Amino acid sequence: MFQHCLGVKDTAVRLAQVYGLDPVKAELTGIIHDYGKLFSHNELIQVARSQGMDDPLIYREPALLHAPVGAVLLKDDLGVEDPEILEAVRVHTTGSPEMSLLARIIYLADYIEPGRDCPGVETIRQLAYLDLQGALLAAVDFTIHYIMERKRLLHPSSIAFRNSLVLSMRNYGQELSGYETK
Amino acid sequence: MFQHCLGVKDTAVRLAQVYGLDPVKAELTGIIHDYGKLFSHNELIQVARSQGMDDPLIYREPALLHAPVGAVLLKDDLGVEDPEILEAVRVHTTGSPEMSLLARIIYLADYIEPGRDCPGVETIRQLAYLDLQGALLAAVDFTIHYIMERKRLLHPSSIAFRNSLVLSMRNYGQELSGYETK
Repeated sequence: MFQHCLGVKDTAVRLAQVYGLDPVKAELTGIIHDYGKLFSHNELIQVARSQGMDDPLIYREPALLHAPVGAVLLKDDLGVEDPEILEAVRVHTTGSPEMSLLARIIYLADYIEPGRDCPGVETIRQLAYLDLQGALLAAVDFTIHYIMERKRLLHPSSIAFRNSLVLSMRNYGQELSGYETK
Repeated sequence: MFQHCLGVKDTAVRLAQVYGLDPVKAELTGIIHDYGKLFSHNELIQVARSQGMDDPLIYREPALLHAPVGAVLLKDDLGVEDPEILEAVRVHTTGSPEMSLLARIIYLADYIEPGRDCPGVETIRQLAYLDLQGALLAAVDFTIHYIMERKRLLHPSSIAFRNSLVLSMRNYGQELSGYETK
């Protein structure tokens, strides 16, 4: 996992430089985005319940829990206060339609960092530095395919995130680079 | 379109017989499920607005509009009063997590009627008479793939419908028959 976080950090810094975001903030967020993974599933459940988190899907899909709970623990345990960093950590697994540039960069870096071998990752790596929205849409679409194949639950925030990307591209009349989703 | 409605009618009757639903109700709903398609897009928009329909996606994805507006027009124009029939018409394109057996049968019949050539349709035709939930999940998954490939918007009701099917299968400890989604 440490290797993954270093990969996300390096990729997030590169993306930040391309898209005009403070690279130091991207670096820090990349390093700590998976902080929730240092805790056991039971510990995460306990924190989620104590915080009154009422999203039923995070209790049914264990892979989702470390992101929102990680954001809480970063604040409580490590004193991270920056709302943009906490938000980027909170939504880095599902995505969300109102993501900041930092959150978008972390979401994408998490998908394409050098240690990753996700479906379509090579295509998205190439797209990432040319077309942020297009690369994000490809990453979300591949993630949705992956989740469907495994008969896991799709999070409504991922769908809302995807739809917001489709709409923003329609609004700009942008033609998406074609990519195969399987 | 008339041929399609006859196909849905025949398929819905067969499914109704297998799953213990009144075949006459299935027959009627199959025949009239696409009533909204008899109207122009502008007419559908006008009715949707006059009814205060506030789902932004039905205005952005024209393919979605004929179902909810068709249900309204069936009631207003033709005097169809049966709430179960109107509901089955209303949700036959997106699906919904709280669908009646009639609505499920119409959704599936719409996907597999003999005139259809949707992705995976042969597999789903075989599954339909053995495992209603499995066939529905396959149909929704293929539909989601289809929509994603075309960069169209995914409706949250389709996702909630899909998640409800995944959860109901988990609850019954049912193993899904494997199928390729592309």
